[in-house]
Amino acid sequence: MFPYLALVTLALGLVGGFVVTLVDRRDFPTFGDGVWWAIVTLGTVGYGDIVPHTAWGRVIGSLMIGFGVTFIAFLTATVTSEFVSAEEQRARERERRREEVTEEETRELLRALKTQLDAIEAKLDGRT
Amino acid sequence: MFPYLALVTLALGLVGGFVVTLVDRRDFPTFGDGVWWAIVTLGTVGYGDIVPHTAWGRVIGSLMIGFGVTFIAFLTATVTSEFVSAEEQRARERERRREEVTEEETRELLRALKTQLDAIEAKLDGRT
Amino acid sequence: MFPYLALVTLALGLVGGFVVTLVDRRDFPTFGDGVWWAIVTLGTVGYGDIVPHTAWGRVIGSLMIGFGVTFIAFLTATVTSEFVSAEEQRARERERRREEVTEEETRELLRALKTQLDAIEAKLDGRT
Amino acid sequence: MFPYLALVTLALGLVGGFVVTLVDRRDFPTFGDGVWWAIVTLGTVGYGDIVPHTAWGRVIGSLMIGFGVTFIAFLTATVTSEFVSAEEQRARERERRREEVTEEETRELLRALKTQLDAIEAKLDGRT
Repeated sequence: MFPYLALVTLALGLVGGFVVTLVDRRDFPTFGDGVWWAIVTLGTVGYGDIVPHTAWGRVIGSLMIGFGVTFIAFLTATVTSEFVSAEEQRARERERRREEVTEEETRELLRALKTQLDAIEAKLDGRT
Repeated sequence: MFPYLALVTLALGLVGGFVVTLVDRRDFPTFGDGVWWAIVTLGTVGYGDIVPHTAWGRVIGSLMIGFGVTFIAFLTATVTSEFVSAEEQRARERERRREEVTEEETRELLRALKTQLDAIEAKLDGRT
Repeated sequence: MFPYLALVTLALGLVGGFVVTLVDRRDFPTFGDGVWWAIVTLGTVGYGDIVPHTAWGRVIGSLMIGFGVTFIAFLTATVTSEFVSAEEQRARERERRREEVTEEETRELLRALKTQLDAIEAKLDGRT
Repeated sequence: MFPYLALVTLALGLVGGFVVTLVDRRDFPTFGDGVWWAIVTLGTVGYGDIVPHTAWGRVIGSLMIGFGVTFIAFLTATVTSEFVSAEEQRARERERRREEVTEEETRELLRALKTQLDAIEAKLDGRT
């Protein structure tokens, strides 16, 4: 999940940074400016040193902000899910060990019943 | 959850962007400026190219910041919950398969006891 | 959790906004400016319309950024925990229903054994 | 996790703030400016009062934005994982109590069978 997420975001930064230079050349004179702005926007940092002022530039900007917020949500979700599932696995392991003890006790009782039944059968056979 | 969240945020951006133009016309001369500022604020990007300077503009701004932070929290929570529950379902599936093996073993022991009891009953009947 | 978190953040915004006006009066001439800056900082929006330039102002600023990031982390954690636990409760409910069926089957087998033992006892009594 | 995370971020802020003054002295004249910019960037606040304009300054800036976003994701994940696991532990505790009741009932049934078998054995012994 993580490397895939990083790759998509990197691609998004490069494409977004390129497209915005086509659409709003006055605010984004070079490709470098576009990519720098895209990174600053995707990270929701928003220094404001480079900002689109045209309608189309702002449309691209709005999309990039949407992508940025979504990217951070997915990144946070990936890390959180990893942490939670590690924690849950430990808890589940403890639970399993407790259950195995209980199951063994039940199994022990059942085996004791079997031994008793064996004795009863032997007695019945012995008396024939 | 996701499409509902996106819709509420979109509506909030349009309404907030419109209200701020009514309240602080000097900082937000057009509806487009208001919406652009609302998007930049809701995404917590905050370029600072357009900023309210009046008291009421700042009140709307504070509300929009509150909505933005809450929106991102809900978005992140939605994605994280999805990820965690997918992970948990896989773990639960594995656990269930393990439990089914244990239950089958217990059931097997009980069925063996039943067979033994059948034999004992047959012996008792045969000797009558 | 939620109302407590909101209250602490509100208090932090008011106190931080007040303290910064004491420490850096040139950048924060009024209490209103201080509170507006505190809100913009705690929400990690950071328009940059008001920024501390003195060493002490930046110390307060750094603390406020730290509080802001922590506040958002706690807010997101609160919402996420709510979502995950709702999801987990549903999954646990389904699991419980499945387990109850299995337990009832085991109990059924045990009751059948009891009936058989009753019959054996009756036979033994009848033959005395 | 938490103190370790705070320490790594603090170190990152100091190192990043120092390196950027070496690489881009015009935008970051003092170490204090570098550290202040690093904190503002790592917290994704991005006031924009200090911004790198050189290529290398922007490379360091991009790295710091990446670290900032990752740091916040890990911080949020740490808090969320804590909250979720506390919630799950409570739910697991309730579940365990329910299971213990069920297990005790099964065990009770097994013990009743044992008592019955004792009686059968006694009868068989008495009749010899």
